[in-house]
Amino acid sequence: PDATAGAAAAARNGQLTKPPGSLGRLEDLAIWLAGWQSRERPQASAPQVVIFAGNHGIAARGVSAFPPEVTVQMVANFRHGGAAINQLCRAYGASMTVHALDLDRPTADFTASPAMTEAEVIAALTTGWNAVDPKAHLLVTGEMGIGNTTSAAAIAAALLGGAPEDWVGRGTGVDDHGLARKAEAVRTGLATHAAALSDPLQVLRCLGGREIAAMAGAIARARSERIAVVLDGFICCAAALVLERAQPGALDHCLAGHISAEAGHGRLLDALGKQPLLNLGLRLGEGSGAALALGVVQGAVACHSGMATFAEAGVSGA
Amino acid sequence: PDATAGAAAAARNGQLTKPPGSLGRLEDLAIWLAGWQSRERPQASAPQVVIFAGNHGIAARGVSAFPPEVTVQMVANFRHGGAAINQLCRAYGASMTVHALDLDRPTADFTASPAMTEAEVIAALTTGWNAVDPKAHLLVTGEMGIGNTTSAAAIAAALLGGAPEDWVGRGTGVDDHGLARKAEAVRTGLATHAAALSDPLQVLRCLGGREIAAMAGAIARARSERIAVVLDGFICCAAALVLERAQPGALDHCLAGHISAEAGHGRLLDALGKQPLLNLGLRLGEGSGAALALGVVQGAVACHSGMATFAEAGVSGA
Repeated sequence: PDATAGAAAAARNGQLTKPPGSLGRLEDLAIWLAGWQSRERPQASAPQVVIFAGNHGIAARGVSAFPPEVTVQMVANFRHGGAAINQLCRAYGASMTVHALDLDRPTADFTASPAMTEAEVIAALTTGWNAVDPKAHLLVTGEMGIGNTTSAAAIAAALLGGAPEDWVGRGTGVDDHGLARKAEAVRTGLATHAAALSDPLQVLRCLGGREIAAMAGAIARARSERIAVVLDGFICCAAALVLERAQPGALDHCLAGHISAEAGHGRLLDALGKQPLLNLGLRLGEGSGAALALGVVQGAVACHSGMATFAEAGVSGA
Repeated sequence: PDATAGAAAAARNGQLTKPPGSLGRLEDLAIWLAGWQSRERPQASAPQVVIFAGNHGIAARGVSAFPPEVTVQMVANFRHGGAAINQLCRAYGASMTVHALDLDRPTADFTASPAMTEAEVIAALTTGWNAVDPKAHLLVTGEMGIGNTTSAAAIAAALLGGAPEDWVGRGTGVDDHGLARKAEAVRTGLATHAAALSDPLQVLRCLGGREIAAMAGAIARARSERIAVVLDGFICCAAALVLERAQPGALDHCLAGHISAEAGHGRLLDALGKQPLLNLGLRLGEGSGAALALGVVQGAVACHSGMATFAEAGVSGA
């Protein structure tokens, strides 16, 4: 981030017509964004939401409440404007693009073999990298992929330790048996790929999915463009975790949009050192929680960039 | 609320292209609003923010970090578009009106005599009542009034009990001495008006302020128009508390937009039985926290009212 712009924004914040600190986290948010955007008055009117979709071999193990064909059906729903994320993008003026990654070729079942080849994971990372609009004011990365909370749980367990049970959750709504199958899949996956788990990118390749790799690629690209990222839920944060473990500090341009209802998300946010903006019990994915947080970021930026100073308004100070 | 519309909205919610419950509190919010608006698909694109300003005799007792002339200065700032609430109204497409209530005639110092006469409190309630646009999709009531957290603390202590220290907070930023003066003012006010405190409307008259009465009037009017209200912080909730104590259930059309950083607000929300949507450390007043929450409500309504159903989108169920 640009320390000069951040300092200018902090100075401006101190002169705005409000008691010092009275906008709470909105103030920190605007100043932080000023640093990343290199401007005293940051902008948030043109955010970008990119959605990546992938299919998972692990879905054959009964780890989801929904059948795998829902991935491609939901991609069609995104394209026709019918999903939750479409409505949220409209509400907050975000552009939205959808990338379906080889949906007819699911990843391999990671309990038996690596989910992706080297070429496949690089292709997915590249798709994510190229999906980012360098002119976006903010980026949200969302996903769709039946089975992908199991993949995300495996990544989290591999990179952060703990029992599989600490990381698996109900996802789209599995019952206790489904939850046990998820934990078992994670346990087997960790054992199968034990030799590869010291390298975060190998963790991504062996246990991840194309949409997860694409999110990681997009988040990394945003860093190179100095675009701030609003992180979504458990799966998005698992993708982000790969970057953080590969390069500590790689997520300094990211803030947590929300804490989801998926069981492991709070623990994952703690590991990333991120405080969520919202806590409303969402667990949908698609980038929906982060998109909802865009509304809050826009409010923060509107106040910071639009308010009058004490001098401009002729208001007495404390 | 309209139970038929609420039931229709709940049925629609169950058919939308998402796992059941996966939009968390957004789902409850949209269904609740459907009941108040008597339509299966509620609307939130045209909210109204009404700001009331009043001056307080109690301000002479050193209970604020800012001098009393800031009230009229901030009214000018509202009218010129320079305050935080102006930016938030623009960000979420809310209309905004400002009502300055006899600023050159502060209420009486409530430690010595009733803050308002019967005629004055009725005039303020009427101003609030008349300020509401019956066509608004949602209402936010905001306030400006140097000294009014002390007045709100006195109302809360009178109606809910507890020590003055439980209800006074730092407001715009008083130091420990200011905080002690606030508690002392509340203690004296409660003693002075002890005989009147069993009647919530007399509490409002003796300890309140014109802008607080006007907020109560506006919230009551919204109920008569079945317009849902997003409650703001400590002062707004003290005004709302008067209505709830006068008529239990009077706030069924209200939701808590946020929990503020003002010390007593969490306790006040508990007493009202309201769970806040946001918790971002705001303590500005002006309706700012509630206005910020409008963005979340708009996201909830956009999803509920705009999403495709499983049948419309051809997506398989669980």
